[in-house]
Amino acid sequence: MPPRNASAIFDAVLALLAERGYAGLTIEGAAARSGVNKTTIYRWWPSKAALVGAALDREMPLDLRVADAGSLAADLAALARAFLDLLTTPPAADAALAILGAAAEHPELAFHVRAFFATRLGPEHPVFARAVARNELPPAADPLLLADAVIGTIWSRVVFRGLRPDPDFPAHLTSLLLPA
Amino acid sequence: MPPRNASAIFDAVLALLAERGYAGLTIEGAAARSGVNKTTIYRWWPSKAALVGAALDREMPLDLRVADAGSLAADLAALARAFLDLLTTPPAADAALAILGAAAEHPELAFHVRAFFATRLGPEHPVFARAVARNELPPAADPLLLADAVIGTIWSRVVFRGLRPDPDFPAHLTSLLLPA
Repeated sequence: MPPRNASAIFDAVLALLAERGYAGLTIEGAAARSGVNKTTIYRWWPSKAALVGAALDREMPLDLRVADAGSLAADLAALARAFLDLLTTPPAADAALAILGAAAEHPELAFHVRAFFATRLGPEHPVFARAVARNELPPAADPLLLADAVIGTIWSRVVFRGLRPDPDFPAHLTSLLLPA
Repeated sequence: MPPRNASAIFDAVLALLAERGYAGLTIEGAAARSGVNKTTIYRWWPSKAALVGAALDREMPLDLRVADAGSLAADLAALARAFLDLLTTPPAADAALAILGAAAEHPELAFHVRAFFATRLGPEHPVFARAVARNELPPAADPLLLADAVIGTIWSRVVFRGLRPDPDFPAHLTSLLLPA
């Protein structure tokens, strides 16, 4: 289990990511900011990518594991809202954008980002199992495609287009993906 | 108009992005690699973001402007294939991933990325105008949502999931977005 001061370390990591971006973050900087000895940090997370991956996993609010909004459409809209919040709500948004953007350039970080999404949105996810049980989704459907479409469309809109989707957007997107 | 040696400069920019990422690129480095004086580069592009934006606009293959595949579904599948190629076909893919990923962290670069997508995939795009003319899309439809869904789902699959979609994927994605 991680050190007792893990949350101070993660707070420092997220603050530095927001201020300086992934390239500007160092383990030494996170140690100085959190007041934790850098050898303690290195003992738990042997690289910057591992440390950022742990901060993403522990601190970032994107979790469908306990949601059951009653229908697949409602569950997907909840995912859309959660991801939109992650990318647009300060103060975590700047760190989330820095981490997810840097995944495109840094293979070791990409490994941790994949694990983050796999844990939360994998094909064995209860949201999809419930949808199959309710006959909302055929057993052979590709639930990952729906999850990728939700996550990806929001990324494209926020990052590639610079738009701020309005509160109706999650439901609007869901109705595109799951027409009645 | 840009200098006659613009293509040598852009080649150097893309090579350096692929090797070192956005953070590792400097105008001085692009000058040294291309053999062009750095004052010449600064005269045309006053910042790294402007230079990278120009390289993206001139050198990256993502262009639907002349396509007319006969139906909106075929046009969207062609867009999906073009974007998938951009993200996965060497040598340009590493530079494309570096540029588009860095847009999440660098507001000035994000401005140029938005212009890149707006030029190629704006709401006034002939692909969407033709779809309305053919009654494939209601006049009030949001064509940008379809474009964002195509681009974004592929980004999510390739970058956030680390998957390499197979050749059927563009048509599969299109049939999710435009059920018969």
